[in-house]
Amino acid sequence: MNDKYKKVMELCRRRGFLWPSFEIYGEVAGFWDYGPLGTSLKNRIIERWREIYVKREGFYEIDTPTIGVEDVFVASGHVSEFTDPLVRCKKCGSVFRADHLAEVNSSETEIIEERIRKEGISCPECGGELSNVYYFNLMFKTSIGPEGDRVGYLRPETAQGIFINFLRLFRFNREKLPFGVAQVGRAYRNEISPRQGLIRLREFTQCEVEYFVDPERKDSASFEDVELLLLPATGKEIKISLKKAVSEGMLAHSLMAYHMKLIYEFLTSIGIPGNAIRFRQHRRDEMAHYANDCWDAEVLTSRFGWVEVVGLADRGDYDLRAHMRHSQVDLRVDTGEELGEMKRVVRPRMSKLGPVYKERAKKIAEALKNAEFKDGGIIVEVDGEKIEIPEEFYEVEEIKETRKIIPHVIEPSFGADRILYVLLEHAYDEEEVNGELRVVLRVPPGIAPIDVAVFPLVNDERLVKISREIAEDLRTHGLQVEYDEGGSIGRRYRRQDEIGTPFCVTVDFETLEDESVTIRFRDSMKQERVKIKELRDRLLKLLGRC
Amino acid sequence: MNDKYKKVMELCRRRGFLWPSFEIYGEVAGFWDYGPLGTSLKNRIIERWREIYVKREGFYEIDTPTIGVEDVFVASGHVSEFTDPLVRCKKCGSVFRADHLAEVNSSETEIIEERIRKEGISCPECGGELSNVYYFNLMFKTSIGPEGDRVGYLRPETAQGIFINFLRLFRFNREKLPFGVAQVGRAYRNEISPRQGLIRLREFTQCEVEYFVDPERKDSASFEDVELLLLPATGKEIKISLKKAVSEGMLAHSLMAYHMKLIYEFLTSIGIPGNAIRFRQHRRDEMAHYANDCWDAEVLTSRFGWVEVVGLADRGDYDLRAHMRHSQVDLRVDTGEELGEMKRVVRPRMSKLGPVYKERAKKIAEALKNAEFKDGGIIVEVDGEKIEIPEEFYEVEEIKETRKIIPHVIEPSFGADRILYVLLEHAYDEEEVNGELRVVLRVPPGIAPIDVAVFPLVNDERLVKISREIAEDLRTHGLQVEYDEGGSIGRRYRRQDEIGTPFCVTVDFETLEDESVTIRFRDSMKQERVKIKELRDRLLKLLGRC
Repeated sequence: MNDKYKKVMELCRRRGFLWPSFEIYGEVAGFWDYGPLGTSLKNRIIERWREIYVKREGFYEIDTPTIGVEDVFVASGHVSEFTDPLVRCKKCGSVFRADHLAEVNSSETEIIEERIRKEGISCPECGGELSNVYYFNLMFKTSIGPEGDRVGYLRPETAQGIFINFLRLFRFNREKLPFGVAQVGRAYRNEISPRQGLIRLREFTQCEVEYFVDPERKDSASFEDVELLLLPATGKEIKISLKKAVSEGMLAHSLMAYHMKLIYEFLTSIGIPGNAIRFRQHRRDEMAHYANDCWDAEVLTSRFGWVEVVGLADRGDYDLRAHMRHSQVDLRVDTGEELGEMKRVVRPRMSKLGPVYKERAKKIAEALKNAEFKDGGIIVEVDGEKIEIPEEFYEVEEIKETRKIIPHVIEPSFGADRILYVLLEHAYDEEEVNGELRVVLRVPPGIAPIDVAVFPLVNDERLVKISREIAEDLRTHGLQVEYDEGGSIGRRYRRQDEIGTPFCVTVDFETLEDESVTIRFRDSMKQERVKIKELRDRLLKLLGRC
Repeated sequence: MNDKYKKVMELCRRRGFLWPSFEIYGEVAGFWDYGPLGTSLKNRIIERWREIYVKREGFYEIDTPTIGVEDVFVASGHVSEFTDPLVRCKKCGSVFRADHLAEVNSSETEIIEERIRKEGISCPECGGELSNVYYFNLMFKTSIGPEGDRVGYLRPETAQGIFINFLRLFRFNREKLPFGVAQVGRAYRNEISPRQGLIRLREFTQCEVEYFVDPERKDSASFEDVELLLLPATGKEIKISLKKAVSEGMLAHSLMAYHMKLIYEFLTSIGIPGNAIRFRQHRRDEMAHYANDCWDAEVLTSRFGWVEVVGLADRGDYDLRAHMRHSQVDLRVDTGEELGEMKRVVRPRMSKLGPVYKERAKKIAEALKNAEFKDGGIIVEVDGEKIEIPEEFYEVEEIKETRKIIPHVIEPSFGADRILYVLLEHAYDEEEVNGELRVVLRVPPGIAPIDVAVFPLVNDERLVKISREIAEDLRTHGLQVEYDEGGSIGRRYRRQDEIGTPFCVTVDFETLEDESVTIRFRDSMKQERVKIKELRDRLLKLLGRC
């Protein structure tokens, strides 16, 4: 089975999983539509993700806008750092990724330009001369409001919506660390020329977790041990248990292991085979601007080799520190742990400040709190003016110094579209049955887009009536049901095999005698006879519900 | 309880349902974040919607990009029509909705400007002179790709992603009408100055259905009868059964009644009281540019009066016709119904055309198919050139003319954010219990953000252990569980009442004796004693699962 990519994508288009967006107006690279089956599959993948992260692990899911104001992305570094190096052909105007064209592993102007000069690289389209390297920001830009002067960007990751809400979320968690916050939603990257189906999209769906932790407690996470294939930045691919990887220092701390285990559990639970998954550590020079350690969960594919589907990054305190600096809001957390030293703090006396300093009293009080204590009086700066505040306007107290921290963030970031694609590729199977090719999508029950198909054996009024009633009953019990009365029964089975429906229920003439129907299993093609009144429970059990 | 709005919004902020976005950078009007409880509630509202429309009614859910290329919105009329009339103050630069300022029910330049002149209206901020009326497009604009010359818009409705895919979806439905297509996702409107919480947002979540139907079959929909409050465009508010409203011509066709019933069923099933819902028909002059009939489902609120939460529009063939014209793709459907007349059609003979016309043969064949038949020969236009094609290059066949149609579209469009808000307002309740104020959010079980809270009566190691085990078990069975061991039991109940948790489970010292726990009901405050081993099934039943 060479190049499954082509077969899977052909199946996806033909059967209504996926197709390029805006077809009637000519496709635009990097945008794909999910058809009915693709949408059901994607929703179910996301639902499984929520079951693990939100329901079971108890992370808080929030939902913030996809448009962000400029400040957010100036602070996060995306305005300055989230760029690709480009060159433009001076003759035909075509634009290319400069580092790809120069075949260098760097985005530095000098390195790329030198290579272009040295190798005499010209425009691949027309042979024309290339421009100097310039940098293109990958965020989609827009403006907010009728004045048109307020810049907004479509978020390049859902993460920032979580970071800027840290204080509210910390309070929601009753001011305790650690805790995880999840977000599912669209993110956007204005890629130069995306041409790899669902692997590189300009608009995609992320499922992200930002896990806030005391930097000194990263090693106190407990985790279930499992053997994984790891590829460290320096070293070779190795199959190793997480416990061992932590104790040998291959993983920086046990929190990495905890998250790797969850990622692995999720990916295998939706049907990606464990032996097609590995974790690869980023080299220093490929790390995102915010990360200080990063392991990608990669899945092996036919055309693209190992493809990143989840990024697990230790973002340290990069983001909270950046937003704290840019917003001037204190995002530190008081751990309450006493450090053994005493500290003198200034307590303003509002009752005295008010009558004397009037409307400036509040600002002065604020400035006093943050001022260093001095004997005799304190000089504070308010509205650019320096004012000396005498002793009678404040008290000085001695308190025990406590440990204040900026929490660190561990982020597992899932690309839902890529995950869906690699799942389809691994689920796709061909086998010969009675001399004919059978295409089967072996997606696990509960994840497959349709739970059960219901057929009358032939188009007989009595069988149709019973089939419709069964379909109706299953639907009202929350199953995704397809009813199909058209064509030969063999053709109907094949269609369901191709879209991955794990169970087909057939109503035949025997049904009229004994009120039983056939359940046919996708994977084994075996059949089981069940009474109609027991059918629903049997199916719910097979689907892992109840 | 005056102005519930304020109370509900205060509760939402304090308890982590909702808060304004980008707070640390100063709020921006029209953007709200959903906190953990708000997100859970919104997800559950959407899940219930899917249960009705996608699972039960069998509409196909698709998922298309939020960014659309310019062609889509030129065709749909949004580039030219989706505007608000504005005036700008010549002195201070403030911008205002011109029709609101002039207090006219029109967006026509002359009418507004005349009123402004006549009434001598000046800038409400500084008294300065106002500019002429100009039109501001409400779509957020961006550009796609590194050349920056491909215009894109953030979709103002999810609907267009469905219309442009009509052919694929029609084929998916095996070329039969009618069928419904659903989409859930973000939509965007760059409102002038939105100031009403969740009622007017710049980024919001829509749940839309586009129901495609043969225009001659709009009256063959069957529906379950129900009594509703209707307010027709001409006439008075009336409580009337849908059957009667159809037979008296108050509703244009039975398909309207079918959709009204579904809307009403959905809104009441999530907890909005039936007597707070009415359907109001749009007047001609307030209808959107694409609609030829529209009924809003409105819900009564404390501050804003009747608020539209669902729009039910008969869009006729406006959209498919518009995309057909603009894309030059034939979006008509052949009903297969013979019209009784015969029609002659031209069938090109490729085997003869090929050798003579070479590379132009294909284009000529295409042109022949669409050409009017004439005796002797046909003149076709290919690449701007007129060519006469002699008889030997085609055959003429007589076929029966069949009825071809452009399907009509009935669209129920749900604003998820508004629905969430009006639900909260109607769920909000205050009562006096033992001289204290009890705030209760009476959201139905299954919709409420938390299914069940689990408490140890006091912070005793043995009770804590059992409580945690119970919480864990319920979580792995798909329930949204909150575990809370802090504070007095009364305070913990009150907190759960406020966030709408329908059931609290308390583990006490009796539990250690007889393995039973207490279920406490939010609405009645009654308590029930249950064995731990029966607890899960009891709760699943109370929540309407299994």
